[in-house]
Amino acid sequence: MSSIIESLYPVTLTGNDIALKRKEIKAYFHNTFDTYEKVFEVLKNDDVFYKQSEITRHPMIFYFGHTATFFINKLINMRIIEKRINANFESIFAVGVDEMMWDDTDTKRYTWPKVQDVRNYRDEVRNLVDTLIDTLPLTLPISKDSSMWIILMGIEHERIHIETSLVLHRQMPLKYIKTNDDFTILSSSSNTIKNEMISIPKASIKLGVSDTHGLYSWDNEYGKYKEEVDSFQTSKYLVSNAEFLEFVKDDGYKKEEYWGDEGKKFLKLSKATHPSFWVEKNGTYKYRALTQIIDMPLNFPVDVNALEAEAFCKYKSIKENLAYTLPSEVEYKAICKYVDLEDTLNLPKDKANQNLQNYSSCDIDTHCFNGIYDVVGNVWQWSRTPIFGFEGFVPHEAYDDFSTPTFDDKHALILGSSWASSGNLIMNDSRYAFRRHFFQNAGFRYVITNNKDKKEMDIYESDTLVSQYCEFQYGDTYFGVENFAKECAKIASKYTINTKKALDLGCATGRATYELAKTFDTVEGIDFSVRFVQVGTKLKEDGIVTFQSPEESELYTNKKVTIEELGYENLTKKVSFWQGDACNLKENFNSYDMILATNLIDRLYQPRLFLDTISERLNDDGILILTSPYTWQESSTKKEFWLGGYKDENGNDIKTIDTLQKILHNTFELIHTQDLDFVIKETKRKYQHTISEVSIWKKR
Amino acid sequence: MSSIIESLYPVTLTGNDIALKRKEIKAYFHNTFDTYEKVFEVLKNDDVFYKQSEITRHPMIFYFGHTATFFINKLINMRIIEKRINANFESIFAVGVDEMMWDDTDTKRYTWPKVQDVRNYRDEVRNLVDTLIDTLPLTLPISKDSSMWIILMGIEHERIHIETSLVLHRQMPLKYIKTNDDFTILSSSSNTIKNEMISIPKASIKLGVSDTHGLYSWDNEYGKYKEEVDSFQTSKYLVSNAEFLEFVKDDGYKKEEYWGDEGKKFLKLSKATHPSFWVEKNGTYKYRALTQIIDMPLNFPVDVNALEAEAFCKYKSIKENLAYTLPSEVEYKAICKYVDLEDTLNLPKDKANQNLQNYSSCDIDTHCFNGIYDVVGNVWQWSRTPIFGFEGFVPHEAYDDFSTPTFDDKHALILGSSWASSGNLIMNDSRYAFRRHFFQNAGFRYVITNNKDKKEMDIYESDTLVSQYCEFQYGDTYFGVENFAKECAKIASKYTINTKKALDLGCATGRATYELAKTFDTVEGIDFSVRFVQVGTKLKEDGIVTFQSPEESELYTNKKVTIEELGYENLTKKVSFWQGDACNLKENFNSYDMILATNLIDRLYQPRLFLDTISERLNDDGILILTSPYTWQESSTKKEFWLGGYKDENGNDIKTIDTLQKILHNTFELIHTQDLDFVIKETKRKYQHTISEVSIWKKR
Repeated sequence: MSSIIESLYPVTLTGNDIALKRKEIKAYFHNTFDTYEKVFEVLKNDDVFYKQSEITRHPMIFYFGHTATFFINKLINMRIIEKRINANFESIFAVGVDEMMWDDTDTKRYTWPKVQDVRNYRDEVRNLVDTLIDTLPLTLPISKDSSMWIILMGIEHERIHIETSLVLHRQMPLKYIKTNDDFTILSSSSNTIKNEMISIPKASIKLGVSDTHGLYSWDNEYGKYKEEVDSFQTSKYLVSNAEFLEFVKDDGYKKEEYWGDEGKKFLKLSKATHPSFWVEKNGTYKYRALTQIIDMPLNFPVDVNALEAEAFCKYKSIKENLAYTLPSEVEYKAICKYVDLEDTLNLPKDKANQNLQNYSSCDIDTHCFNGIYDVVGNVWQWSRTPIFGFEGFVPHEAYDDFSTPTFDDKHALILGSSWASSGNLIMNDSRYAFRRHFFQNAGFRYVITNNKDKKEMDIYESDTLVSQYCEFQYGDTYFGVENFAKECAKIASKYTINTKKALDLGCATGRATYELAKTFDTVEGIDFSVRFVQVGTKLKEDGIVTFQSPEESELYTNKKVTIEELGYENLTKKVSFWQGDACNLKENFNSYDMILATNLIDRLYQPRLFLDTISERLNDDGILILTSPYTWQESSTKKEFWLGGYKDENGNDIKTIDTLQKILHNTFELIHTQDLDFVIKETKRKYQHTISEVSIWKKR
Repeated sequence: MSSIIESLYPVTLTGNDIALKRKEIKAYFHNTFDTYEKVFEVLKNDDVFYKQSEITRHPMIFYFGHTATFFINKLINMRIIEKRINANFESIFAVGVDEMMWDDTDTKRYTWPKVQDVRNYRDEVRNLVDTLIDTLPLTLPISKDSSMWIILMGIEHERIHIETSLVLHRQMPLKYIKTNDDFTILSSSSNTIKNEMISIPKASIKLGVSDTHGLYSWDNEYGKYKEEVDSFQTSKYLVSNAEFLEFVKDDGYKKEEYWGDEGKKFLKLSKATHPSFWVEKNGTYKYRALTQIIDMPLNFPVDVNALEAEAFCKYKSIKENLAYTLPSEVEYKAICKYVDLEDTLNLPKDKANQNLQNYSSCDIDTHCFNGIYDVVGNVWQWSRTPIFGFEGFVPHEAYDDFSTPTFDDKHALILGSSWASSGNLIMNDSRYAFRRHFFQNAGFRYVITNNKDKKEMDIYESDTLVSQYCEFQYGDTYFGVENFAKECAKIASKYTINTKKALDLGCATGRATYELAKTFDTVEGIDFSVRFVQVGTKLKEDGIVTFQSPEESELYTNKKVTIEELGYENLTKKVSFWQGDACNLKENFNSYDMILATNLIDRLYQPRLFLDTISERLNDDGILILTSPYTWQESSTKKEFWLGGYKDENGNDIKTIDTLQKILHNTFELIHTQDLDFVIKETKRKYQHTISEVSIWKKR
């Protein structure tokens, strides 16, 4: 590819013509896949693919592979396809969007493949997705449970990575970057633009799209939310480099009074003295654009994180004795309402600096929306609102950890869009959030407001399933049945031969991982869903687990367990938590003395993929412990992959324990079985009482 | 209405134009509703509406109201509408398709309304359905979970009643019937038609429609079934009155050797000596058509029930020393395949005597399908196959007792269609079954075959939910928790003051009904679903409960409990079981000394409709016993109707027990509460352990 690609708008979900819709989806898929590959052309050569642009992020090769493997992993998990293209790629390229502990960026743990091999792999994925677009069952409108939804999800996921990869490329040292005229960098005028405040009238704001919304939307965009917004004032322009320069010159980065706790922590760690994309040289500042360092474009919006934006507001407030702050999500929507912002799909393409028309910001006085500039486009605008789920929020089954891990009061919504945004990112109802210290193509506008923040973030885990597991693992016991995680760890400690390293596979909220650390030197906890993994991680990092214990239907009691109460203070260093797929585990998860897989096998999409190779991850004398009630169900496992619970063609009962023996016989000796009860609380009056079978296998 | 109405074909589920689809549905609805009212014009006057054409069936007024109330009851149950049009009509006209014990036909129990009031009521229903057709959310193709599906269900339900009402009208004494030229009665030729046998080659037959089938289908039509059919011979024509006359003349109705056990029972009860629609006069036979008695149409197909058809086959087999029998379902499909029977929607309208083109049979040599006559149309053809569910069968939520109560080995499939069939009844994949002694517009053709009947009817209840309740009420106990039905009956006997009559409301499979009969003289058990009611009834009639107890996923153990084992031999006369809706109970359910409602209130669509009036059904000193775990859920009860388990607008917890006290306070005194556990087995290793709250209320 050489010339630039015009970015298409997302495909609508509605229509009458199935063949035409397939054509539209394919065009949009290619446009996205091509653009993603195109933006990697700014990397100087293949060696650069193995560089990290930031210590906390993967090397670029990961991202190059990741958006392709995403399609395959989701299609496999949703049981739409059964065969992987490259199991190794699809484990090492699996996870890595947000900067989180369980997003494993320790490069030494991997052997990264050749760039050309990843290019070939991307071509194979492209061909498969093409075939699926042509052949998957399709009715219109496309709904969330359609298999085509997973294709659209893969496309929109890649659109996000187009934007975040452009940030990573911009963070990469210039020596690794190729100048390329295809990526237009705009220039800035030397006019002085003075910011001013505009009054926004009070408004009744409704958020959330309905299930019949005509565009692909992420789960956090669905549902209902309503808030009355009182009148307030907003800055007419985004804050420019010129306006922010005053703050820098007034020693803004040095005066602690402008910075909150999180801000101070950021300053300490980053040692920042100016915005990240400014380059200091002999006391003056230049500006890092995507592929060049240019003279400071004073009228471009400044790129900062939320902590810098908040510090600026504090500085300006003290200076002017007025209360400047970042806008809330609903205040931003009131601004959109005030300027009659149209649907993106009806907006003239050059109305805003978005959708990859340019590969840089532009002057803040370029795009006027009925009196206010850059309501959308140019750079994202940090808000003061942590992202949360609307009433009726349900995680999408195929990507249940897209949103919920960010509903933690630590991820602030970014408003509008940037020059690098396209696809769902520039749709009016989309919602994206990042940690406040994170860099994006993001700046800010400020407001003066009396609006109180209505939504108090609930620190108690409100994710029903996660709460249920927290109660199960950290809550009370019922009907005299002992805590299951503790009992499993006791059994493991009784049967294990060596005690160096253990794996808690399907660790859920992590209780057994900690209990195992009483016996083992190192314990790794792995779960498929980050929704679960983050509980164990939070206990390690913050020393606390908080959750809602269900009482009667929607009534809950808040519960809290501290690391001291659990007696785990000295165990935190021994445990670590990771996201992973038991059917396609990364190679580096190996050399265990004991692997515990509780209530896992009957929830895997292809349990044999786990069982056939698990012995390779065990040391000599290693012990495998399985527990399961053998409740096979088609919603988790296609019937052809069940290990039991059905009659064969001759009418004989096939029982799981017999199949396990057949599969494991060559590599393991079955040394013990026993029943072990557990009770899961659904409400104060309703419980699941299950009797799992524990089977203990010694590696031959 | 005066002239005849041309019957429309069903609306397809697919299309691109929503407005057009609404128009098509409305036209089809009116066509159906009009035709139904039209066929009641054969009744001489309004007085006849209060006559029964058979002692086991309701008077005609019931059927006249029933098809309209069906729409309302289903729309209410599916929470599509919330307000009834006429609660009384919608209870008394609620149930009555199959001839079953729980289909209450004891006329003395009701005061039937005026015909004109029912006419007015039908007009109101028509207007409401019209509005819903215009306004319900609609996407194409229409799927089973669409609210429009319920409208289509109401229409097809009425199409069935057009056919069965025409049978009832034909059974009504002629003095009650008006001659009406709109209803064409055909005449028969005097040619002699000799039947002969045609060879049908072997065939591989697949049955069942997929979820993407383009026409409304009943739940029993979905799924998969496959059978290899060996070659066999079939009669070229349906059996005519002339052919059947030989059997009558040869004393076929008097010779027991032609009749099986069920046949002998039929002969004894009916005292039949000839087909039901033949009229004997001075040793010769005339023929009852819909509105007249005519000379015997020798070439019309004979109308008989399955027992008479089987007796004829036995007679003919003995006479010719050949094995004649009725065809199986798959053999019939092999005949259809052999003659290349086209889709009904492509069939010229006059190709077969169906779809109400005439209001009588026609000669059996009128409609030829590539060599075989009346493959569809004229009269239904009895099969030897009891109806069963295909692989993947799931009862439709809105009408869960349409099919499953007939999967009992006692309902034989009828094949083809009759002159009175229309709508889904004449679609190629439809499946209808009746008890073998039942009269329809049905005759038969015979076959000579070596095909064995592959499907052995499972006498064990395979309906998962019903089996689960059988195990719960009649199976083992687990975790030391006593049988819940027995414990509830003990509590009732402890707290009741008088012991004449009790009601077990939400009786499920009826165990508590029997247990209560140890204390009370009379106990009525009522449940919303016939799927459940039939279990208690079967125990009463056949002295046995059989069910599958789940072990591991799809593996089951068959269990059997006899009335002797239960010690209920002397209780059967005291109990009776009825289908009923706790939110709209028929008036005649009253004068109880005790009403037990176990685990009912949190599954009602509007629990207040039950609670607000229940005291009126109790005698002085009457006791109401509620048990519930208060697990409110939106799939059963819209949130606005929950009695607890939520926070009110001020953030206060609303608990069910408090709301119950508020609602019942004026009419009841709360005299006792206690917890009572129960355990429901899901598999050998998985149980629900629930703690219900028992509250005991004494009528003020």
